[in-house]
Amino acid sequence: MAKPTPLSGYPELLPAQRIVEQQVIDRLRRTFELHGFAPVETRSVEPLDQLLRKGEIDKEVYVLRRLHADEAEGDARVGLHYDLTVPFARYVLEHAGKLEFPFRRYQIQKAWRGERPQEGRFREFTQADIDVVARDVLPFHYDVEIARVIAEALSALPVPTLRLQLNNRKLIEGFYRGLGIEDVDAAMRTIDKLDKVPADTVAAMLADDTGLSDDQIKQCLALAEITAADTSFVDQVRALGVTHELLDEGLRELAEVMDGCTGLVSERLEVHAVLRIARGLDYYTGTVYETLLTGFEAIGSVCSGGRYDALASDGRTTYPGVGISIGITRLLMPLFQRDLLTASRSVPSAVLVALPDEESRPVCDRVAQSLRARGISSEVAASPLKYGRQIRYAERRGIPYVWFPAAGAVAESPIGHEVKDIRSGDQRPADPDSWTPPQEDLHPRIVGEGEPS
Amino acid sequence: MAKPTPLSGYPELLPAQRIVEQQVIDRLRRTFELHGFAPVETRSVEPLDQLLRKGEIDKEVYVLRRLHADEAEGDARVGLHYDLTVPFARYVLEHAGKLEFPFRRYQIQKAWRGERPQEGRFREFTQADIDVVARDVLPFHYDVEIARVIAEALSALPVPTLRLQLNNRKLIEGFYRGLGIEDVDAAMRTIDKLDKVPADTVAAMLADDTGLSDDQIKQCLALAEITAADTSFVDQVRALGVTHELLDEGLRELAEVMDGCTGLVSERLEVHAVLRIARGLDYYTGTVYETLLTGFEAIGSVCSGGRYDALASDGRTTYPGVGISIGITRLLMPLFQRDLLTASRSVPSAVLVALPDEESRPVCDRVAQSLRARGISSEVAASPLKYGRQIRYAERRGIPYVWFPAAGAVAESPIGHEVKDIRSGDQRPADPDSWTPPQEDLHPRIVGEGEPS
Repeated sequence: MAKPTPLSGYPELLPAQRIVEQQVIDRLRRTFELHGFAPVETRSVEPLDQLLRKGEIDKEVYVLRRLHADEAEGDARVGLHYDLTVPFARYVLEHAGKLEFPFRRYQIQKAWRGERPQEGRFREFTQADIDVVARDVLPFHYDVEIARVIAEALSALPVPTLRLQLNNRKLIEGFYRGLGIEDVDAAMRTIDKLDKVPADTVAAMLADDTGLSDDQIKQCLALAEITAADTSFVDQVRALGVTHELLDEGLRELAEVMDGCTGLVSERLEVHAVLRIARGLDYYTGTVYETLLTGFEAIGSVCSGGRYDALASDGRTTYPGVGISIGITRLLMPLFQRDLLTASRSVPSAVLVALPDEESRPVCDRVAQSLRARGISSEVAASPLKYGRQIRYAERRGIPYVWFPAAGAVAESPIGHEVKDIRSGDQRPADPDSWTPPQEDLHPRIVGEGEPS
Repeated sequence: MAKPTPLSGYPELLPAQRIVEQQVIDRLRRTFELHGFAPVETRSVEPLDQLLRKGEIDKEVYVLRRLHADEAEGDARVGLHYDLTVPFARYVLEHAGKLEFPFRRYQIQKAWRGERPQEGRFREFTQADIDVVARDVLPFHYDVEIARVIAEALSALPVPTLRLQLNNRKLIEGFYRGLGIEDVDAAMRTIDKLDKVPADTVAAMLADDTGLSDDQIKQCLALAEITAADTSFVDQVRALGVTHELLDEGLRELAEVMDGCTGLVSERLEVHAVLRIARGLDYYTGTVYETLLTGFEAIGSVCSGGRYDALASDGRTTYPGVGISIGITRLLMPLFQRDLLTASRSVPSAVLVALPDEESRPVCDRVAQSLRARGISSEVAASPLKYGRQIRYAERRGIPYVWFPAAGAVAESPIGHEVKDIRSGDQRPADPDSWTPPQEDLHPRIVGEGEPS
């Protein structure tokens, strides 16, 4: 077999990078669980008709076929899921009788899209989702809770400053209705292009395609320009003089979410009301969330979501939901690719037990086992090379300590062992049944911007 | 959308079961990391030509195709991996320049096979693999280490007694060569059928298809009958009077692996030398491992592996390896399906903070946040229902404690709070900044045979 080459769009990590990714997932999971979110994992495939319900995405679905499938076999046509929301909605309907509502779940899994690979876009990627879903009615306070949980989760990540941007679809829709705009959706979709298209062009599109008046266009653009790091956006909107019941509701809701995030803002995480944001997807009906990574805005939102009045429905019962999804791969890969993020070592081992000779392996195994019994990850050297070469073995992997077992006759006694910190060169006697490294050396540490060193 | 139905072969867990599966994965990961195995995750797809190298498995591969792929597009043909060994071998070759050898890795991931679903066979399943791979030469002591690590890992699982069965291909091959058998592989493949086919039939096949003499057949069957819970198998083999250099090597290696497992045998895990085992796959060249779940022998081996002289090769460099793979789905699903295994609750929450009225939500949020700050998973009630109904909310989820916040005026003081253990009914004053539940209530516990209660 010749040396294999990477598959475009399918990122793969070296062990030190995977250690970082795992720790990121561990931190997210811990935050989600502290807030009482239960773990769910769905199968990786869904029937094609489920995957294609959203319309625009159909080109990106990967269809599965058994290599030698018999055409007459009648296998249900299935494809890999492209997000975790569609499978979760199906899971809720399928298992509704066995779930307790409101149902709070987190789900950390891979998803697949057959997109053209580019920075921030992958064909296989890992997402971390949280959602709360209820039967019939989901109280608004969950919109606040989702923002708070995700703010806490994002603040714990070893990445540059994140900027959580909030808006509310009712606010936009109420404002547009107050202006007398009839095709609210069309206007919203056009305004949503402001990120990529100059305001002049957007204005022209609003006039030509959506038939808005100059005053309506001016007001829409004015609303879209409003941002605030607190609830001062309310007065800014009021100053535009538009009134509508739905606008009031949207303003009140967005102010509550912003208020809920006070105290979670830090150097690591900014929270802004950004009244331009609509989020393209059609099913959001209230709060919308998106998140930019400072310095990497071009990769798009790394954490998005919102409220949907009908996350799922079986015709008789409707399940409203609110949730958000962190793009773990999208968030971490740009940092890995630029060597801005790694781990302090490429193995879990804190200790390499050196091997004086092959006959001493049982003694060395016992030392390692004694360290492991106290939670200290340890491995025994592969071969009884000269100690200098064994130290090099540890160095190349970033293992901080090398243990020199007692020699010969006293091998089973706790006397005569020594441990060396190969970073400082410091070497001293140690007892395998009690020696413990400093807490910060126990596990590989994340090294990168945004991570306290 | 009508109520969806399950897809055959794609198991899906309820939250309490997923909690068990996660804890099982956590325990495996902890054991692997304590022994210094580094985490690797490979992409889910491989080029088809890689997946088909092993020959027999080709019918089971799922091929991926973009729904509206342009035929002229020339996408590399890829399929989902059906195990973690083929992707790992490719990973080693692709990243060899950036890895340190001997390379010890664990990998816990899903795999897919288009098999006909049946008990113990799934189309999507989770595997946990460990392997050690070296450049050119891999010392034999790693065969012992893999057995020890896996014995430790299996002993920590909440399942009925496991029976780890060991053998060595050199032992069989040496014995057969000592008997003068020429087509050793054919004889081994036939003897391997003893699990499913009566000895008479196997004997007839050895005579008719492989051309063995009566004495050779008698000796092969005698060897296949030998089992031992210690190294006494060596004398049993010697008593058959066959000699060959390779037989000696196999006996010595198997005895070393058995010796290495002394001390790891328990009520949870038996370790046996079973000289019948060959493991069907052609690439094993020394030690072979397989594992049966007591009472569920029919599902087949739940943990198998062995030594291969060439795990991977790029033509210039050969990478020998030794490894083993736990079938997590195969192991847990029969227990879930029979309600033999579950978690003490379906949510991580140890505490439900009751909500006296909607105005008290900020107070309740602060109580919950104070508990979370000390690692106690907590959620606030969804609505200010009567306390009896809020207690029912906790009961249905298995949440052991309900917190009653101080009423009205003293809301922000630590005075006046009470916490109730809803299992015993015991209710007493508690301070949100210091109260802690007993350790065993902090996280959902696994409930099932094989788990201390």
